[in-house]
Amino acid sequence: MKNEYTSTLIICIFAFMFSQDTIVALATPSGAGAIAVIRLSGPDAITLANAKFKSIHNKDLTKQKTHTIHLGHIVDGTKVYDEVLVSLFKGPNSYTGENVIEISCHGSQYIQQQIIQLFLRNGCKMADAGEFTLRAFLNGKIDLSQAEAVADLIASDNEASHQIAMQQMRGGFSSEIKKLREELLNFASLIELELDFAEEDVEFADRTQFITLLSKIQHVLKRLIDSFAVGNVLKNGIPVAIVGEPNVGKSTLLNAFLNEDRAIVSDIAGTTRDTIEDEISIGGIGFRFIDTAGIRETQDVVESIGIKKTFEKIEQAQVVLYLSPLTPAIENLESIKIEIEKIKNQFPLKTLVVITNKKDLYTPEQIEAIETEIPATLFISAKTGDGVETLKNKLLEFVNTGALRNNETIVTNTRHYDALLKSLESIERVQLGMDGGISGDLLSIDLKDALYHLGEITGQVSNDELLGNIFANFCIGK
Amino acid sequence: MKNEYTSTLIICIFAFMFSQDTIVALATPSGAGAIAVIRLSGPDAITLANAKFKSIHNKDLTKQKTHTIHLGHIVDGTKVYDEVLVSLFKGPNSYTGENVIEISCHGSQYIQQQIIQLFLRNGCKMADAGEFTLRAFLNGKIDLSQAEAVADLIASDNEASHQIAMQQMRGGFSSEIKKLREELLNFASLIELELDFAEEDVEFADRTQFITLLSKIQHVLKRLIDSFAVGNVLKNGIPVAIVGEPNVGKSTLLNAFLNEDRAIVSDIAGTTRDTIEDEISIGGIGFRFIDTAGIRETQDVVESIGIKKTFEKIEQAQVVLYLSPLTPAIENLESIKIEIEKIKNQFPLKTLVVITNKKDLYTPEQIEAIETEIPATLFISAKTGDGVETLKNKLLEFVNTGALRNNETIVTNTRHYDALLKSLESIERVQLGMDGGISGDLLSIDLKDALYHLGEITGQVSNDELLGNIFANFCIGK
Repeated sequence: MKNEYTSTLIICIFAFMFSQDTIVALATPSGAGAIAVIRLSGPDAITLANAKFKSIHNKDLTKQKTHTIHLGHIVDGTKVYDEVLVSLFKGPNSYTGENVIEISCHGSQYIQQQIIQLFLRNGCKMADAGEFTLRAFLNGKIDLSQAEAVADLIASDNEASHQIAMQQMRGGFSSEIKKLREELLNFASLIELELDFAEEDVEFADRTQFITLLSKIQHVLKRLIDSFAVGNVLKNGIPVAIVGEPNVGKSTLLNAFLNEDRAIVSDIAGTTRDTIEDEISIGGIGFRFIDTAGIRETQDVVESIGIKKTFEKIEQAQVVLYLSPLTPAIENLESIKIEIEKIKNQFPLKTLVVITNKKDLYTPEQIEAIETEIPATLFISAKTGDGVETLKNKLLEFVNTGALRNNETIVTNTRHYDALLKSLESIERVQLGMDGGISGDLLSIDLKDALYHLGEITGQVSNDELLGNIFANFCIGK
Repeated sequence: MKNEYTSTLIICIFAFMFSQDTIVALATPSGAGAIAVIRLSGPDAITLANAKFKSIHNKDLTKQKTHTIHLGHIVDGTKVYDEVLVSLFKGPNSYTGENVIEISCHGSQYIQQQIIQLFLRNGCKMADAGEFTLRAFLNGKIDLSQAEAVADLIASDNEASHQIAMQQMRGGFSSEIKKLREELLNFASLIELELDFAEEDVEFADRTQFITLLSKIQHVLKRLIDSFAVGNVLKNGIPVAIVGEPNVGKSTLLNAFLNEDRAIVSDIAGTTRDTIEDEISIGGIGFRFIDTAGIRETQDVVESIGIKKTFEKIEQAQVVLYLSPLTPAIENLESIKIEIEKIKNQFPLKTLVVITNKKDLYTPEQIEAIETEIPATLFISAKTGDGVETLKNKLLEFVNTGALRNNETIVTNTRHYDALLKSLESIERVQLGMDGGISGDLLSIDLKDALYHLGEITGQVSNDELLGNIFANFCIGK
């Protein structure tokens, strides 16, 4: 039975074992920096590197210990390409599980290209996207969910997504699934055995223990499935629509959110403003701000198209921030009230926060008047920072970060979510069958289904198409 | 005497020794890639890294050998930042000569920043631009011209500039200067000694040997100074003006030049078309193409401004490619001849290549007619590639690559060129003084001058301002 489910994987590994190329790729971001790292992996990585490496101490790379670093030059005949440091990893003690060489060269694109081309001309093959990590998976260094976490980790841009990816990469999540699958597999084998001895009417599998296991698995699966709602939000950021006409203070507000983090971020080279302008990390959680216009009543055709677009954008958001038009706010309180009502009616389930900016410009009487008419208004001054902290905390309230704080497993990957749902479905069918006293044959079919879907998560069950899809999303060099 | 010239340097080193911070910076290009490398350097690099590193084998970094690699996690209390590889280099066997730690982490910008900030909070200081290389210089790992070569190497984008930078970095150039300066210093000391014993009228310095040395130094300096002309061109690329009206086939021609290299380049991620569009490497030499309009006779004010600009651009070029207007080329042969004459008259010293593109469109009779009227015309077809190779070779003929081929020392740095000129000037004054039987006192002054300027090149003489200027051009992390 075990064989049946792992056969696809075995075929895949088989194909892999007979095409053992040594691959090469740039592992660091392209562009100019102080150094760049070029990575080789495969059975011939060390010998191929050794052929083009001239150690300053005349060392033979093939005779060096694993996890050591060697200074020298990359050379081709009399031509010297660069002075480099070569890091040597002997399989299976490497990222991929194969022999791995990392060449740390000077960061010129010209040099990077020259060295990569040198190895392409001399027995290496250009690595496909994600091929280093694929090899790590195929060589059993990591399971599939860990491999996926590597990509998530590289893409992570805030504390929450980083923490989730780290946890997944360290195997916390998949080891739980693996253990449950192992237990289930034992029962499945015993039930298969019963089928083989059907005429003798023996019961190898203890039904009471089996039912306990089924309910345990259902409990775990349900918890993981439930975690996806928050996981998805944490991974992709929480969409927040800011409803407000131009010049109402939106960018001042975003800047106020940024203030704290910016001071730290600006120390580090390469952090450009553009990339975080609309996605801001507050308390370690990513928030994606969607800019929309106001929605005041209008007869104008062009403007009413604008209102339709605003509603469409609010639709995508989880939280709506309504930035009331500035002075003369007092004069148009009625129209503001109507706008707010409209949003509430259209989107009764969305969380709405009404904000009045430039608090410092209002008299106490005006503030009182606004508070009477629009009770839940939050007064802030994006300029002085007054009230911004309260707003931040309000935004964080909408996120259930409990799981994150308690270091619970959180599922963020749609593929895992799908497989978990399918596993749960099959397990529930098994449970139903048990309850209804179904025959071993039929039980076995649902059990196989459940085992299959659980195995998909960790990659114990996989096929080329699945692997292709997963690793195509990686960058080259990883 | 030695003391006098090295005093500024000693002050600088002194200041450096008492502010022995441990510095940290990202060493790889910013942006997302598979991995990123964060570098620490300084007396506490290993202990600081060890405090935030949890080896998977519970290794203590402070007890590990130099040039070894260790797998583990960067942690802060219970928080896990990333799974990393830590490379350990013990001073003086490192790039900077100090203890150095390189942390190879996952390539997310978020992770990079988090780890750098962790070390900034825990005893490290952010590295200034070029500070790692500055420390390598101050710790005597490399001389100043080698340090400058590191920056040139990172900036190199073609074979010629790469090769020159490599040669300079390996010290070929400065060791020659250092040796000559040492010999000169010996003589200078002896002459100083004579001054001390002036009353006794002794001659410690052998005048014949001294004159031989002076002429040797002059010979070397002249050769290095002469090499600057070609060095400068090779480093910065050769400016080529293309004279031709819009749509005359300029971009087709540039594409034809690119064809060969592009095929190779396109394999490697991150090579964008924009950066090499106007600077093209032909036979390993960089050519900078300057686009200009035609220069036909005109009464039109606007057009005559255009002609003035064209002439200004030709002024900057070393080679002028004249792309004759396409069909009806035969009809306007006379006006083309006038244009060519005008360029020849205006710039008698520039090399001019007259090109007729779309060779395939002309009949043999037309080609004969054109050749009769404009004898040196080069017929090409940028589309089919016919004649492009001939044009490439013609362009390469204008570059004296002899020195490059023979691995001769080539000066490319304006600062070195300046110092070499000043050294030569002082040496010539010493020579003149010797010929004229000048007194030891006056000889000594010119000698000191020469020693000073020679020392500037290798950094044996330096000051904070000079170092500041040089290293400010480096990127952070180098």
